[in-house]
Amino acid sequence: MDVSSIQSPSDIKNLDHHELMELSQNIRTFLIENLSKTGGHLGPNLGVVELTIALHHLFDSPKDKFLWDVGHQSYVHKILTGRANQFNTLRQYKGLCGFPKRCESEHDVWETGHSSTSLSAAMGMAAARDIKGSNEYIIPIIGDGALTGGMALEALNHIGHEKKDMIVILNDNEMSIAPNVGALHSVLGRLRTAGKYQKMKDDLEFLLKKVPAVGGRLAQTAERVKDSLKYFLVSGIFFEELGFTYLGPVDGHNYADLFENLRYAKKVKGPVIVHTLTKKGKGYKPAETDTRGTWHGVGTYKIESGEQLKPADTPPAWSKVISSAVQVIAKEDKRVAAITPAMPVGSKLEEFRDEFPERFFDVGIAEQHAVTMGAGLAAQGMKPFVAIYSTFLQRAYDQVVHDVCRQNLNVFFGIDRAGLVGADGETHQGVFDIAFLRHLPNLTLMMPKDENEAQHLVYTAIKHDDGPIAIRYPRGNGLGVEVDDEMKQIPIGSWEVLRDGNDVAILTFGTTIPMAMKAAELLEEDGISVKVVNARFIKPLDETMLTELFKLNMPILTLEEAVLQGGFGSAVLEFAYDNGYQHAQISRMGIPDRFIEHGSVKELMEEIGLTETGVVEQVQQLLPIR
Amino acid sequence: MDVSSIQSPSDIKNLDHHELMELSQNIRTFLIENLSKTGGHLGPNLGVVELTIALHHLFDSPKDKFLWDVGHQSYVHKILTGRANQFNTLRQYKGLCGFPKRCESEHDVWETGHSSTSLSAAMGMAAARDIKGSNEYIIPIIGDGALTGGMALEALNHIGHEKKDMIVILNDNEMSIAPNVGALHSVLGRLRTAGKYQKMKDDLEFLLKKVPAVGGRLAQTAERVKDSLKYFLVSGIFFEELGFTYLGPVDGHNYADLFENLRYAKKVKGPVIVHTLTKKGKGYKPAETDTRGTWHGVGTYKIESGEQLKPADTPPAWSKVISSAVQVIAKEDKRVAAITPAMPVGSKLEEFRDEFPERFFDVGIAEQHAVTMGAGLAAQGMKPFVAIYSTFLQRAYDQVVHDVCRQNLNVFFGIDRAGLVGADGETHQGVFDIAFLRHLPNLTLMMPKDENEAQHLVYTAIKHDDGPIAIRYPRGNGLGVEVDDEMKQIPIGSWEVLRDGNDVAILTFGTTIPMAMKAAELLEEDGISVKVVNARFIKPLDETMLTELFKLNMPILTLEEAVLQGGFGSAVLEFAYDNGYQHAQISRMGIPDRFIEHGSVKELMEEIGLTETGVVEQVQQLLPIR
Repeated sequence: MDVSSIQSPSDIKNLDHHELMELSQNIRTFLIENLSKTGGHLGPNLGVVELTIALHHLFDSPKDKFLWDVGHQSYVHKILTGRANQFNTLRQYKGLCGFPKRCESEHDVWETGHSSTSLSAAMGMAAARDIKGSNEYIIPIIGDGALTGGMALEALNHIGHEKKDMIVILNDNEMSIAPNVGALHSVLGRLRTAGKYQKMKDDLEFLLKKVPAVGGRLAQTAERVKDSLKYFLVSGIFFEELGFTYLGPVDGHNYADLFENLRYAKKVKGPVIVHTLTKKGKGYKPAETDTRGTWHGVGTYKIESGEQLKPADTPPAWSKVISSAVQVIAKEDKRVAAITPAMPVGSKLEEFRDEFPERFFDVGIAEQHAVTMGAGLAAQGMKPFVAIYSTFLQRAYDQVVHDVCRQNLNVFFGIDRAGLVGADGETHQGVFDIAFLRHLPNLTLMMPKDENEAQHLVYTAIKHDDGPIAIRYPRGNGLGVEVDDEMKQIPIGSWEVLRDGNDVAILTFGTTIPMAMKAAELLEEDGISVKVVNARFIKPLDETMLTELFKLNMPILTLEEAVLQGGFGSAVLEFAYDNGYQHAQISRMGIPDRFIEHGSVKELMEEIGLTETGVVEQVQQLLPIR
Repeated sequence: MDVSSIQSPSDIKNLDHHELMELSQNIRTFLIENLSKTGGHLGPNLGVVELTIALHHLFDSPKDKFLWDVGHQSYVHKILTGRANQFNTLRQYKGLCGFPKRCESEHDVWETGHSSTSLSAAMGMAAARDIKGSNEYIIPIIGDGALTGGMALEALNHIGHEKKDMIVILNDNEMSIAPNVGALHSVLGRLRTAGKYQKMKDDLEFLLKKVPAVGGRLAQTAERVKDSLKYFLVSGIFFEELGFTYLGPVDGHNYADLFENLRYAKKVKGPVIVHTLTKKGKGYKPAETDTRGTWHGVGTYKIESGEQLKPADTPPAWSKVISSAVQVIAKEDKRVAAITPAMPVGSKLEEFRDEFPERFFDVGIAEQHAVTMGAGLAAQGMKPFVAIYSTFLQRAYDQVVHDVCRQNLNVFFGIDRAGLVGADGETHQGVFDIAFLRHLPNLTLMMPKDENEAQHLVYTAIKHDDGPIAIRYPRGNGLGVEVDDEMKQIPIGSWEVLRDGNDVAILTFGTTIPMAMKAAELLEEDGISVKVVNARFIKPLDETMLTELFKLNMPILTLEEAVLQGGFGSAVLEFAYDNGYQHAQISRMGIPDRFIEHGSVKELMEEIGLTETGVVEQVQQLLPIR
C-alpha cells in the first residue's frame, strides 16, 4: 500500500497480515526518507509503527480517542489519518506540526508537547464519557519515561481508584530521551524478563494444589500463606496493586501479539495497562543502535551513512558553554553539584557526569523533584546547578516559589532553551519564564550576551551566597566570541552600555542584543544616536543606570524575546512609576499575548515584528517628530 | 515531666517507658488546652505524639534531620525542641509559626506548608551527606495523603533508584485533610490488614520447604514457580518494588513497637520505609471520631463539649457562595462537573458531591492531575469547575499553561483563598496568582466584590464558551449582601463605577473595595472627589473605561491584595504606555517583593500599608499640591 494514498484509518481496516507487514515497511521507508530532509523525531516514530497501525486497525478513531503522550511519536498516526502528503512541511513555518494538533485533524483529540499529561486527560475524557453515557474507548499511549513524571503517577493513582474503563498503552522502549532512570524502570525491567504474567498465574494454581495438607497450628499457617501467595501473585504486580489489569509484556513489533492483547484489553472492565515492548529507531540501524538519544530528535541526515548533517564550524551550543563553565568551577568548588530531569544530553551535562559522577543526578522526567532536591542540597550547604529547559521549568513553579525562593536557598538554575525554540513550536517556546519568575522574592535572574559573559555570570552565580539565582540562555549556538582565561564576578544588578548614544536608549539582553546593535547602526545612518544597554540582570534592575537615563529624559525602548505582560519591559515601567519618572517615554517590544506556533526562529521573529526593521520603526515612533 | 520545662531533646533521652507514657499524656493535655485558645492543627498533632517522642528519643536532632512533610504536624517537635512556652502565640503575628521555620530553631532544618516536598528534600540532603562523607540520618515524615502528590512519587522513584540511606516515616492515618482517595490508599489498606510482613516472609520459607519434589516437565515448572513466589514475596510489596525496604505496619501509639522498628530501620542499608499507623486526633474524643476533617485545623473551641467557637451569624463563606452557585447551575446544565484536589470540605463541595456524585471528583492531593483532568473533561464538551486554593494552584502552573490555556479549553477555575490568608502564613498566602496567570494567552481572570456579584460571575463563567476563565475569592466570609433571585451574565471585561468622583480614580477589586470606599469617604471630607471602580475583570481590562479615565487625565491609584510585580497595577501601566497615555499619573498599591509571614490579615495589611489611611496618603501624594 502506498503511504501517500492513505486518506483515513478506514483504508487500512481490511489489510491482511502480509499487507500490514508491507505497510509497516513502507511507512518506515517514508519516515526515514522524509525526515532525512526535514529533521524530526525519528527514533520514537520508528518504534511505534506496528503499534500505531494495530491501534488504528482495531479501534475506531476519532470516536475512540488516542492520546499521544508527549506527542512526538504521533507521525505514524498522522500518516494513517491522511497527512502523509504534508510531511515535506513537517515542523516548518505554517507546515505540519511535530505534535498532535486539534486544528489539523479530527483524529488529534488531545494536544501534547510536554510529557506525562495523557493519563490525566484520559481520566477526564473517560469521566465525560461515563457522564454522557457514550461508549468510546479512551486510549492514552505513554512511554516508560513519561510515566515517571509526577502528574502521570497522580493520574495512575486516581484512575486505579475510580476504576474507569480505559486502555493505557505503556510504550516501553527503555528510554525517555536518554536512557531511563528510576525505580519504576527497574520494575518494568523485571516485568520484561518475567515472562508472560498469565502463564505465571496458571503455574501458581498448579503449585498451590500440590501443597500438602498439614495439621494443627501449621494448617493455619499454611492456609494463611496460601492466601498471601495468591494475593501477591494475583494483585502483586506493581500496576495491579494500583488497580489496573496488567497485560503483557507484548512484543510491540509483532502483529499477532499486539492484536491478541489489544483484543483482550477491549473486553476488560476497568483500567487496563498493555505493557508493550518497542525498540526506538526500529528498522534504521543508526537509530536502533543509539544509546545516547542522539536519534531521538534529529536534523537532516544522510540515509546511507547515518551521518547527521550539521553546519560546519559552529560555535559551541549555549548549553555546552554554561555546563562547561559549571564543570570548570566544580573542580575547585566541591559544593557544586548538577541535576537534570532526563536531559543529560540536551543540557550537555555528560562530561560533568563523567568527571563528577557522585555530584551528578539525572532524576528522570521529574522537574518538581529536581528543583526541590536542589533545595535539599542547598539546605545542606551545597551549590546545586539545576538545568531545566524554560518551558519545563513551568512544571516546577511551585517548587521554585515554595521550596527555593521562600527559604532563600542557594540554588542555581540553568534555564535552557529560553526564548523561541523554533521547530518544536508552541509547547516548547521558552517565553514565559521572565513573567513567572520576576515576581518571586529573593530571586536573581540574568541572561548573558555571549559566551564570555556567560562564563562570568556562571561564576557570579556560584559565588552568590544570598539566595537563588538563575541564568537563562537560548537554544542553539553561541556567537563564537573569545573567552577570557579567568572567570570573574559581575556585580549583581549591573548593566553594561554596549554602544553610547544621546537620542534614545534600547534596553535589551541576550539574543536580541545583536538586533538592537544593528538597528542602532541603521538609525545612526538616519542621524539618530542610539545607546544600547546590555540589561543582563533582568532582576534586580540596574536602578542606578535606569535613574540616570530617566534623569536625562532619554526615551527608552525595552526589547525582549519573551512575553510582554509582566515581563522585563513591565519591570522598567514599574520602576519608572514607583520612582517618580512617570513622564518617561518608554516603549516595549516583545512577544504578544498569544501562543507562537512552530517555524524557524527567524520566521517567527518576523511574524511578531521582532526584527531590526521593527526596532528601527519603534524607535522612530518613540522620538519626537523632527 | 512538665511540658514547659523541656529545653531540648536531650531532656527526654533518659526517660523510661512509664515516663514516656506520662509525657505523651502531658503533651496531649498541653496541646488540647493551648489550641482551644489559639486554634491550630489539633488532629494531626495529637496523632503524632508518640511518634515524635520516639524519633527524638532515638535520633540525634539537629545532626539527624527531621523533615516534616506539610509541617502542620510539627507542634510536638516544637515542644520537644524547647518552644512550649511560645505556644500562646501560635500562628499569631510575630508569634510561633504553625509550620517548621528555620529561623525559630536549629531543629527545623526544612520548611514546609505545601505537601509532598519532604522526600525530594530528603534526597537532596542525603546526596549532600554522601558527597561530604558525613553520617547523619535523614528522616522525612510524610502522611499517606501527601504521598499521593506527584512530586512525592517522583522522589520515591528516584530514591529507590539511587538507594540512598534514608528512613522514611510513612505516617498513615488514612486521611489527608478529608478521608483519602486513590489506589495507593488501597495498597496501604491491604498492608495494614496483612499483618507483619517479616512474619509472612518466614511463613513462605516454611511453605516452600513443604512443596514436594515432582519429576519431568513439572519439576521445571515447580522450580520456576518457587522462584516466582520467592521473588514476589520478597520484593512484591509495592514499596519494595520501588527499591525500599518496607517495615511495618507499626502501631504509632505503641512505644515498644515504634522503638523496635525504628531501631531496626537505623541498621538497614539503603532507603527504608517505616509504615506507621496513627490515629488523627488521638486522645481527644471529638477529634478522634471526626471523619470529615473538621478537627484537622481548628479555631478556638470548648474543651469539654468539643464545641468549635465561631462568630455567630456570619455571612456564608466565600467558598460556599461560589460552590453553591456552581451547584445551582449544575441542576440545569448537565455539562457542569466539579473537581477538587483533596479539599471537598475546604472548598465547600460536599453538597455538590452529594447531589451530583457522578459529576464530582476528589482526586486527592494532586493539583496537576486535577487541572489536566479538567482539561480532558472540557475537551469532551463538559464544563469542569476546578476548585483549587491560590497557593496550591502554583503546583499546576504548567498544566494551566500547556493543557488548558494553550488548547483554549473551557475550564472554569475557582481560585480559593486568594489574597492574604492570615494564620497559615507565608506558604499559604494566595498573592502570586494574578502575576503567574495574567501573562497567559486566552485566560479570563476575575474577582467579585460581594456574594451577589459572585453568583453572576459564576454564571458568566459557565456560560463563557471561549476558553478558560477563573474566579478568585478570598478566605473567610462574604459581606452578607442580598443576592438576586436570577443569575445573569456580566459582560467579559466590564468594570463598574461604584462611586463617582472627579479628582482621582481608585481601580480595585474584591477584598480591597471596602477599603477604597472608606478611603474615598475620608478624602471627600478633605474636599477630594474620588471615583472608585470595581475592576472585577483583572484580565481582560475594561479598555473603554480605562481610555475614558486617561482622556480625562484623571490620576489613577490601583489597589490590590496581591504582589505588585507583574500584577493588576502593572497591567494598567502596560495599557497606558501601549496606548499613548504615558503621561497618565498612576500609582500602584499592593504587596511588596517579599514573603509575608503569619498573623491576622488585618495585622498583615497594616504591616504592608494596605489600609484606609495608606490609601488616603497615597491618593494625596498622587494629586498635585493644592
